[in-house]
Amino acid sequence: MFPEALSRLIAEFKKLPSVGMKSAMRYAYCVLEMSDEEAEDFADSILEVRKKIHICPLCGDYTEGEVCERCQTADKSTILVVGEPKDILAIEKLGTYDGLYHALHGLLDFRKGIGADKIRIKELLSRLDGVKEVIIATNPDISGEMTAHYIAGLIKPMGIKVTRLAHGIPMGSEIEYADEMTLSHALSDRKEL
Amino acid sequence: MFPEALSRLIAEFKKLPSVGMKSAMRYAYCVLEMSDEEAEDFADSILEVRKKIHICPLCGDYTEGEVCERCQTADKSTILVVGEPKDILAIEKLGTYDGLYHALHGLLDFRKGIGADKIRIKELLSRLDGVKEVIIATNPDISGEMTAHYIAGLIKPMGIKVTRLAHGIPMGSEIEYADEMTLSHALSDRKEL
Repeated sequence: MFPEALSRLIAEFKKLPSVGMKSAMRYAYCVLEMSDEEAEDFADSILEVRKKIHICPLCGDYTEGEVCERCQTADKSTILVVGEPKDILAIEKLGTYDGLYHALHGLLDFRKGIGADKIRIKELLSRLDGVKEVIIATNPDISGEMTAHYIAGLIKPMGIKVTRLAHGIPMGSEIEYADEMTLSHALSDRKEL
Repeated sequence: MFPEALSRLIAEFKKLPSVGMKSAMRYAYCVLEMSDEEAEDFADSILEVRKKIHICPLCGDYTEGEVCERCQTADKSTILVVGEPKDILAIEKLGTYDGLYHALHGLLDFRKGIGADKIRIKELLSRLDGVKEVIIATNPDISGEMTAHYIAGLIKPMGIKVTRLAHGIPMGSEIEYADEMTLSHALSDRKEL
C-alpha cells in the first residue's frame, strides 16, 4: 500500500513508546512535507544525540561532558537512587532536592535473570565516601521494592542512613478508589499530625 | 536542564503533529536507549524517505517510481481530487474506488494568498482526456468548499460530470449533536428511501 521507503519510516516511528500505526503515519507524512533542510536536521539530531550524549560514569545520567555538572556541583552528602535516568528528571522538576543522583539503569528481576551485577550497584557502592543518606526512589512495584531492599541491606551495615520515598494515597485521589497495596502502605506509614 | 544535543532532539520531535513536551521527551529518551544500529537505522530511514520518495508528476501522490503504479493501472475514466496525499490513503482503505486520484497539495485560501496557481489545478486540467467524472473530496471547510466550486466551474463547461462527497450526519452520531452546517447539508442533500 505504501512505497517501501515510507513503510520503513512508519515502522521506525512505531518503535517509539506509545506510537501506533495512525500516529506513525502522521509523523511519516510530516517528514515528507518537510523541507530538505528540516529533514536533514531531524536525522542529524538523532545521530548527534547518540554521538555527544553519554552516560556520566559517576551518576549514570545522560550528559555531554565527561562527568556531569551535577556530580561536580551538588551537595555530596546525599544520593538519590533511581531506576532510569528519566526518573531523575521527575525529581529535578520539583526543584527542592540539591544532592547527588544515581541511576541504576535497571532494577533487579530474577525471573528475567537481572541480578545485582547487571545494574549499577557496584558503582553506587563506590560513591558512598562522605555520604550521610541514600534515598531510594525506585518504582513501587515488585522489582523496585526488591532492589530497594537489596541496596538497603548492603548500605545500612556501613552506618549510612537509607530512606525511600513515601508510598501512600496520591494527592487529589480518593481513598475509596485506592488499591489495597497503596492503602496498606498509607496506613502503616501514617504520620502524626 | 537537558544537555544541548538532547534539547535539540526533543525540539525536533516536538515539530511532529500533536507531539507535546512530554511525548517528545519520551521519544528522545527512547532514542538514547536504542542500540547504535537502531539509532542509525532510524536516522537513515528519514533521509531515505526523502531521497527515494517523490511526488508522482501525474496524480501528486508520493511514489518511489517515476510515475506511480496507480496512475499506470487504474481505471482512467474517473479522477478523485483531494487536498493532500494523505487524504488518498483514507479513500484507498475503503477498497471500493478503483479510479485515478489527484492531490492538489493545498487548497485555495485567498486570505493566505494561495491562489489557483499555487496548487495543482493546471496539472488536473491536463489529465482530463477520456475522463467522464471528477469526484471532489476536499475537506468540508471554507477552503475546501471554495476549491471544490472553483474546480467545478472550470471542468463542468467541458461536459465532464463533477461530483463531490456527500456531506451529512456522520454514521453512529446523534442528530441532536450535529452542528448547524452539517444538519443543513444533510437536509438539503436528503435521499429518497
